[in-house]
Amino acid sequence: MIVVMKNGAGAEQVQAVADTVTEWGLKPHVSQGEERTVIGLIGDEAKVNGPALEMMAGVEKVMPVLKPYKRASAEFHAERTVVRIPPARHGDRGLTIGGPGVVVMAGPCSVETRDMILSLGAFLKGAGAHLLRGGAFKPRTSPYAFQGLGVEGLRYLAEERSVVGLPIITEVMDTRDVEMVAEFADIIQVGARNMQNFNLLKVLGRCNRPVMLKRGLASTLEELLMSAEYVINAGNDEVILCERGIRTFETFTRNTLDLSAVPVLKRESHLPVVVDPSHGTGHWDLVAPMAKAAVAAGADGLLLEVHPDPSHAVSDGPQSLTPKRFKALMGELELVARAVGRNLH
Amino acid sequence: MIVVMKNGAGAEQVQAVADTVTEWGLKPHVSQGEERTVIGLIGDEAKVNGPALEMMAGVEKVMPVLKPYKRASAEFHAERTVVRIPPARHGDRGLTIGGPGVVVMAGPCSVETRDMILSLGAFLKGAGAHLLRGGAFKPRTSPYAFQGLGVEGLRYLAEERSVVGLPIITEVMDTRDVEMVAEFADIIQVGARNMQNFNLLKVLGRCNRPVMLKRGLASTLEELLMSAEYVINAGNDEVILCERGIRTFETFTRNTLDLSAVPVLKRESHLPVVVDPSHGTGHWDLVAPMAKAAVAAGADGLLLEVHPDPSHAVSDGPQSLTPKRFKALMGELELVARAVGRNLH
Amino acid sequence: MIVVMKNGAGAEQVQAVADTVTEWGLKPHVSQGEERTVIGLIGDEAKVNGPALEMMAGVEKVMPVLKPYKRASAEFHAERTVVRIPPARHGDRGLTIGGPGVVVMAGPCSVETRDMILSLGAFLKGAGAHLLRGGAFKPRTSPYAFQGLGVEGLRYLAEERSVVGLPIITEVMDTRDVEMVAEFADIIQVGARNMQNFNLLKVLGRCNRPVMLKRGLASTLEELLMSAEYVINAGNDEVILCERGIRTFETFTRNTLDLSAVPVLKRESHLPVVVDPSHGTGHWDLVAPMAKAAVAAGADGLLLEVHPDPSHAVSDGPQSLTPKRFKALMGELELVARAVGRNLH
Amino acid sequence: MIVVMKNGAGAEQVQAVADTVTEWGLKPHVSQGEERTVIGLIGDEAKVNGPALEMMAGVEKVMPVLKPYKRASAEFHAERTVVRIPPARHGDRGLTIGGPGVVVMAGPCSVETRDMILSLGAFLKGAGAHLLRGGAFKPRTSPYAFQGLGVEGLRYLAEERSVVGLPIITEVMDTRDVEMVAEFADIIQVGARNMQNFNLLKVLGRCNRPVMLKRGLASTLEELLMSAEYVINAGNDEVILCERGIRTFETFTRNTLDLSAVPVLKRESHLPVVVDPSHGTGHWDLVAPMAKAAVAAGADGLLLEVHPDPSHAVSDGPQSLTPKRFKALMGELELVARAVGRNLH
Repeated sequence: MIVVMKNGAGAEQVQAVADTVTEWGLKPHVSQGEERTVIGLIGDEAKVNGPALEMMAGVEKVMPVLKPYKRASAEFHAERTVVRIPPARHGDRGLTIGGPGVVVMAGPCSVETRDMILSLGAFLKGAGAHLLRGGAFKPRTSPYAFQGLGVEGLRYLAEERSVVGLPIITEVMDTRDVEMVAEFADIIQVGARNMQNFNLLKVLGRCNRPVMLKRGLASTLEELLMSAEYVINAGNDEVILCERGIRTFETFTRNTLDLSAVPVLKRESHLPVVVDPSHGTGHWDLVAPMAKAAVAAGADGLLLEVHPDPSHAVSDGPQSLTPKRFKALMGELELVARAVGRNLH
Repeated sequence: MIVVMKNGAGAEQVQAVADTVTEWGLKPHVSQGEERTVIGLIGDEAKVNGPALEMMAGVEKVMPVLKPYKRASAEFHAERTVVRIPPARHGDRGLTIGGPGVVVMAGPCSVETRDMILSLGAFLKGAGAHLLRGGAFKPRTSPYAFQGLGVEGLRYLAEERSVVGLPIITEVMDTRDVEMVAEFADIIQVGARNMQNFNLLKVLGRCNRPVMLKRGLASTLEELLMSAEYVINAGNDEVILCERGIRTFETFTRNTLDLSAVPVLKRESHLPVVVDPSHGTGHWDLVAPMAKAAVAAGADGLLLEVHPDPSHAVSDGPQSLTPKRFKALMGELELVARAVGRNLH
Repeated sequence: MIVVMKNGAGAEQVQAVADTVTEWGLKPHVSQGEERTVIGLIGDEAKVNGPALEMMAGVEKVMPVLKPYKRASAEFHAERTVVRIPPARHGDRGLTIGGPGVVVMAGPCSVETRDMILSLGAFLKGAGAHLLRGGAFKPRTSPYAFQGLGVEGLRYLAEERSVVGLPIITEVMDTRDVEMVAEFADIIQVGARNMQNFNLLKVLGRCNRPVMLKRGLASTLEELLMSAEYVINAGNDEVILCERGIRTFETFTRNTLDLSAVPVLKRESHLPVVVDPSHGTGHWDLVAPMAKAAVAAGADGLLLEVHPDPSHAVSDGPQSLTPKRFKALMGELELVARAVGRNLH
Repeated sequence: MIVVMKNGAGAEQVQAVADTVTEWGLKPHVSQGEERTVIGLIGDEAKVNGPALEMMAGVEKVMPVLKPYKRASAEFHAERTVVRIPPARHGDRGLTIGGPGVVVMAGPCSVETRDMILSLGAFLKGAGAHLLRGGAFKPRTSPYAFQGLGVEGLRYLAEERSVVGLPIITEVMDTRDVEMVAEFADIIQVGARNMQNFNLLKVLGRCNRPVMLKRGLASTLEELLMSAEYVINAGNDEVILCERGIRTFETFTRNTLDLSAVPVLKRESHLPVVVDPSHGTGHWDLVAPMAKAAVAAGADGLLLEVHPDPSHAVSDGPQSLTPKRFKALMGELELVARAVGRNLH
């Protein structure tokens, strides 16, 4: 932490900062510049009350030197995290996320019917998808919109897993539902609007399922890493980060998919990084180019909305691929993955 | 709802849209333009699956004509909502929010100690504040930061109310805590990060306490109104809206306080509108000018952070007023309130 | 300037930074922290090539300590700038901007006809406005939209000044037009889209007219001050800053008017600060509340669009006040100005 | 254009709109809905004064149906534009931008010395680059920063072309310099801060050189297309669009590179689309992944900053590749280009 004093700050003001810092168990290191005095704090930054320093007389600003995340950080955890999903059925192979392969999670926005889940699951498995996505609890802007099938939806997903064999990823929205969702899901998803639902993160930190955190609409990557820190700090190391677009002024797309998040998160953190081009763009015709771009940028996986009949989807139809388009995309993705030294394993 | 067909869309595509709409019980009204055919849908918009229409062959875009909120809307509820807070103690007067007076809610970011709450409460009451604010459950970006005193904090607030007489507003973060918080609070606050925690909104819709909804960091005013719609639709009419700044690229301020939200929300809705210049700016020296500006813009109330010793606050010190500055500000606010035909009642 | 080394940076990397800095004529001041080494640079920051330092081996980041603006800064120029506009006609009083009075600049978006300018000018003067605004050169998003009357428009404005007596403010868009516009205008306006047209700023720095700089749609306040620095550095001290709304995701308003810019700019700089609630909101019904809020926040002036018949305006009709509404607003503004210790002089 | 009337608008208000529209030569088409009356305007939208309609009594909003750009639009110009750059020297091959090949424009941010340009040009040509980029006129936020070598820099670039053989792309900032820059440059670049410098666009529309328009920091894609419309409408068909990142709240990157701009612009327009991952990210280690992502997303070209010694660059060092890294990247790009059916021709 570095404290920059105001132009003209007096010696007694500098001394007061030094004394306060010393009380906290750190060593102040004063540099007298030409226009500013600067005080470096040597010792454990966690002991520093930065805002309190900022309020002291003569202080202009306080600049942190260290990053606020530790357990999520590549600096403190050199080995990359590989999340392992157990085989869906006896005799199946398990899955890894964050290893050399690129993982494709595909399926409808909402779980609509049992039939849809079973038949779409079978199709997706045949086309090479690795996980089935589908929402049973749906965060909807309007109270009048379809809110999801709830536990019934979870049961259809579980049935698909045991019958078809695709492991499942599904969203939880409420601390009260974590236990139940964890019974069904292979990966529990935290939606963008809940990325800073800190109580939910704490409860997920105590469940024994991998957690995929979607970046909030207006969250910085540092905040996404801090939310991962919540989960890891509460005891759960298996966190997957997901870029799904941020809110900007642009209107051609539903969100602005920030693909530079991929190399930034892979540099800053040891956690796997997945991209959701369906929510990230909001239009099916933009999904294929952005999915390929995500793989080229180094993503460890993709989250893709596929619907057997997008024009009758109860939610997110315009951004859903048809099964036929999904299958064609899988072939294209394999080529791009190989071009960057990976594959759709 | 209006459906704009693509340039060159065929008659059979127009017919398909018309047929679909008719099936849903609406009447299609086709206008053949020079470059585009446009189809107006006459009837109940709630029956329309807009995204499904958007997916149909030949459709370029679907434009809603009606607003998505009804119960929160000034159009469907001509009389303005006035939230009434009962007297804190026998013999005290009650409070109204949304009437002619401008209400001031003041207090520390976090409830820190019993002493602080009792003595600060007494000071604030003397200085003319109407409610005491203070967080017992704190949403913090870092898991290593102070997370609030929990129920102990709520008890200090309740003690202040019965001893000093200021009613209290405090935040809830978890569906599991709503019942408990409702026992203590006069107004329950939903923080910016939970504005679209839809399960929390539904639970609050079934509790019998007024709810103050803070606008999310990246939420449009339409989304804020839709979140109010969730609470009202679940049974609770007493909703207060709060502008507290949105996230932009500007760095001098913690957030960008969007004061135009005040006249927009008062035009679009019948609900009271409160402004939080402390979070909205992040710096105590900007709080006074923005508080005065909020009153001049028509706000029904202010949420102000006051701390007996900001440089030792456990959270948000830099944006907290000292008691002395708060008292001076109250005098200035009274003058501005009168200039716009109101008062600090 | 402070250089933060990476965790694990070697002694020779620290030495290399120290040597480079010494070559530039500054003194390095090394602090060995527990996790990071930090090097403070003592001496003239202008001699430092910050990006070059950032590229050196072992360097994590470089943090500036000083502000990049000097001539625009309150720190280096303690006395506040008051811009003086000479009397329009013999016998008239001159005007000051940045003094105790709040200045109102009002008029149409575009100069449309001679009659309009003369009659509206007379009305506005009677209603208490201090300057007439009106665009002869119009920056329009579409090449098919009205581009302004050009020099003919300037002549109408000048005629108004000599006949009616309101000094004029008008926009320049092109380095080639500065000389001509300076012949006619009392204040030359730089539009938001030209705030970082650095060649234009340099040319304006050499003309002898006050310059009003409008904040760019996506410009930070620091960048606005840096643009002022361009004008002042080129020789023209008479710069007025104008907040006119920034671009965000909100759609109810055309822009998001950032009123906290007013107290920030008045703290950081010695220059007068004006607010444009017409462009800042885009809707006439939001102009009055935001104009009052701007004055309450401490603005030195307002820029208001007024049109004799907004529904026939060639540009910006929806955000223009009718003359009747303008007159009513002037009365309200006077009350708010007095409430904050000022007046509409 | 569609006019939505307010709930409760009277028949005479509907009639007034219909009459006005008829006067303008269009046919009104009235649909009486349950809650709203909607009026479709049939005929030439260019004759409609939308804001004027919006001001009429009883009108709630006016919604355009057609896109505001025509000449830049894929709808009105089915064949894709291919920009042809003539051979630099007798015997060289020319270049095309917008054809099957992906074009790489590489070079330093600023032209610094003659030697640098000649030797770097030779290296880049050998490594497979197609054009040399380099700024002789530099838009800098600070008046105290290096402003470019001006015409001297242009001469070095021209010398490189005749000696080494790479055609050149360079920026123009001022209407007064267009003629001179056009003498030297193969492609004239308009920087992000000048994207809406409409006078500059008009002058460029009358010069006979291809123009590359960089998207403004806060410009929508529609606005970028409207700026292209300015150039084309003034007579110059050879426009290249460039995505270079927009301003958001994220701080790990200098800008947020919006790669979905690539498929959107290629769908909406017939113009070639180039991506600048150097400015788009601001950090050299993010350039390679984002360059590959841009090609995977369908970009027709890349703009890459390369500097022989980034730690001594006068500008933009941190985002510049070393020659060695550039060469390695070219090999990787070729693989990605082939994976999407293209090549670095």
